[in-house]
Amino acid sequence: MSADGPVAEQAMRRALAASDRVHGTTSPNPAVGCVVLDRDGRVVGTGATSPPGGPHAERAALAEAGPRAAGGTAVVTLEPCNHTGRTAPCVDGLLEAGISRVYTALADPNPVAAGGLDRLRAAGVEVTLGTLATEVARGPLRGWLHRQRTGRPHVTWKVATTLDGRVAAADGSSRWITGPEARGEVHDLRRRMDAIVAGTGTVLADDPVLTARHPDGTLRDHQPLRVVVGNRDVPPGARLRAEGVAPALHLRTRDPAEVLAELTRRDVVDLLLEGGPTLAGAFVAAGAVDRVLVHLAPALLGAGPHALGDAGVGTIADIVRLQVDEVRRAGGDIVVDAVIDPRPACGPAE
Amino acid sequence: MSADGPVAEQAMRRALAASDRVHGTTSPNPAVGCVVLDRDGRVVGTGATSPPGGPHAERAALAEAGPRAAGGTAVVTLEPCNHTGRTAPCVDGLLEAGISRVYTALADPNPVAAGGLDRLRAAGVEVTLGTLATEVARGPLRGWLHRQRTGRPHVTWKVATTLDGRVAAADGSSRWITGPEARGEVHDLRRRMDAIVAGTGTVLADDPVLTARHPDGTLRDHQPLRVVVGNRDVPPGARLRAEGVAPALHLRTRDPAEVLAELTRRDVVDLLLEGGPTLAGAFVAAGAVDRVLVHLAPALLGAGPHALGDAGVGTIADIVRLQVDEVRRAGGDIVVDAVIDPRPACGPAE
Repeated sequence: MSADGPVAEQAMRRALAASDRVHGTTSPNPAVGCVVLDRDGRVVGTGATSPPGGPHAERAALAEAGPRAAGGTAVVTLEPCNHTGRTAPCVDGLLEAGISRVYTALADPNPVAAGGLDRLRAAGVEVTLGTLATEVARGPLRGWLHRQRTGRPHVTWKVATTLDGRVAAADGSSRWITGPEARGEVHDLRRRMDAIVAGTGTVLADDPVLTARHPDGTLRDHQPLRVVVGNRDVPPGARLRAEGVAPALHLRTRDPAEVLAELTRRDVVDLLLEGGPTLAGAFVAAGAVDRVLVHLAPALLGAGPHALGDAGVGTIADIVRLQVDEVRRAGGDIVVDAVIDPRPACGPAE
Repeated sequence: MSADGPVAEQAMRRALAASDRVHGTTSPNPAVGCVVLDRDGRVVGTGATSPPGGPHAERAALAEAGPRAAGGTAVVTLEPCNHTGRTAPCVDGLLEAGISRVYTALADPNPVAAGGLDRLRAAGVEVTLGTLATEVARGPLRGWLHRQRTGRPHVTWKVATTLDGRVAAADGSSRWITGPEARGEVHDLRRRMDAIVAGTGTVLADDPVLTARHPDGTLRDHQPLRVVVGNRDVPPGARLRAEGVAPALHLRTRDPAEVLAELTRRDVVDLLLEGGPTLAGAFVAAGAVDRVLVHLAPALLGAGPHALGDAGVGTIADIVRLQVDEVRRAGGDIVVDAVIDPRPACGPAE
């Protein structure tokens, strides 16, 4: 007997969580999660995509399951691949293991790797597509799906601002506008990213390190590529030059299209834009921001630098509208997680 | 048998709703609600404070209940008054009607009117104080309690802003940043207020009417006093001069203390500060804002006037911190309802 719907959804949540743990380490491959259930619906294997060259999620979950996979169910966030790259097709692994049923959230939009579900069906495997599709599409695969569709990295603009839209006081001081919970979330976000981008203005004003750290200040295992954008020099004493992580990349441009083209070449899938207002304005104006993550401190300043600089909007009819996915509290702060309503995209693919 | 706790809470919610319907029409008296239950706990009377000179909530509820009040319960948002003003003490009414139990949310902080509960207890009435106290204190009595405590009106600053803290585009255009649901809430709020204050800058820039209207555009029954603050003249053609409501009051000052002193003299309890950034900044700087209601449109402008002007904050240590009571959605918008952390208050009482 194969697993039924609710059991499959539960397993999909587990697969999603497994993929979340490797998010940031798999690019340019998608961060996939897979759970294998035996004939009785018990979890016997959990896997997630390894860094490029290593096994895919299905192979890892099947290895853990061993012979218990025979006659069982595989629950996987993305359609199992059907092509030979650096690893053999996952579909082969599933068939060899004797899997009789497959649940997957999303079809593979990549024509080279797709066709996995068709091959499984042809081999007599029962296939269900669409399990928790919405949740999975907003999870670790989001940036990868975006890159497949548009040919450029998925850009999240994150900003910590007061309720009146200020990111620092009149004298430039800004530590800390938001509380420890919201700041902790930023580090959780950074470790999922392939690159973090900041403008030279922010580097000169705030001297950020742009690393992903644990609450105790130690470095996380995965560090995104740190990218400084702008024509000014990074001072020799900048904290960005601190040791312990790979050197930052300095792109001497302020054109979002050039930044995205270079980072596309460098296999960046998920990009976090962290500052400052001028660079963020240029990205918004170029239609190069996909997701907006605002950490709102319940506080007022009444003066000081703005959250967002010139974004090419001169009159109210051109306002940039967002769709809010979620509003939630993080400690004393408010987090607004939104997407920009579709606009002409910028980047190499279009 | 008198009503028990859960029945009393249910009745208190009904009393609160009754008081909400008259909020804005009772100043300088508190907008109180009262529900009378018969011996079996059935609602037999509901009342709320009439405009000054008319019956209080208890009298109205008792009148509806008639003889069914005997041996019953009165549930009232504020301690029944024990003094003779333009009307006889409510305590007398309750005793005459033969009420055997009273639930009240809040004690009367006004020494002249207080003592009602003591007199009821002395007469053998079972008295419970504190039923839904938190909810009631955040309801229609909030401004009145504030004025009792501080001697000045309760000030709500309401602002509609984009996520990046702009209230209009670079060219000054601003209709509409927020959606119809949020705008409807503003009219619900206005009809609860004794006065709405706007600066002359806002009058000149936006030409607002500052009336409380129904969604179809017709005027609500209760209109707050409209107050224009500032030294510039209101142009003869301003929409503020439209007929159908009482003329606006023009206070030729920009000093919040002077504004509050004048409006205290005019029996204002609940004051809504609607614009613009300069006046709001002056009120925040003076410690004269109590509640902050931000209608956040999920949109970006990147330029244009700010939500809040100079509030006397030059460095991050002086940031004005808020406590968030509620974050909720209103249509596509986000509403943040907060209070300013206590600061030295401004106004006649201190």
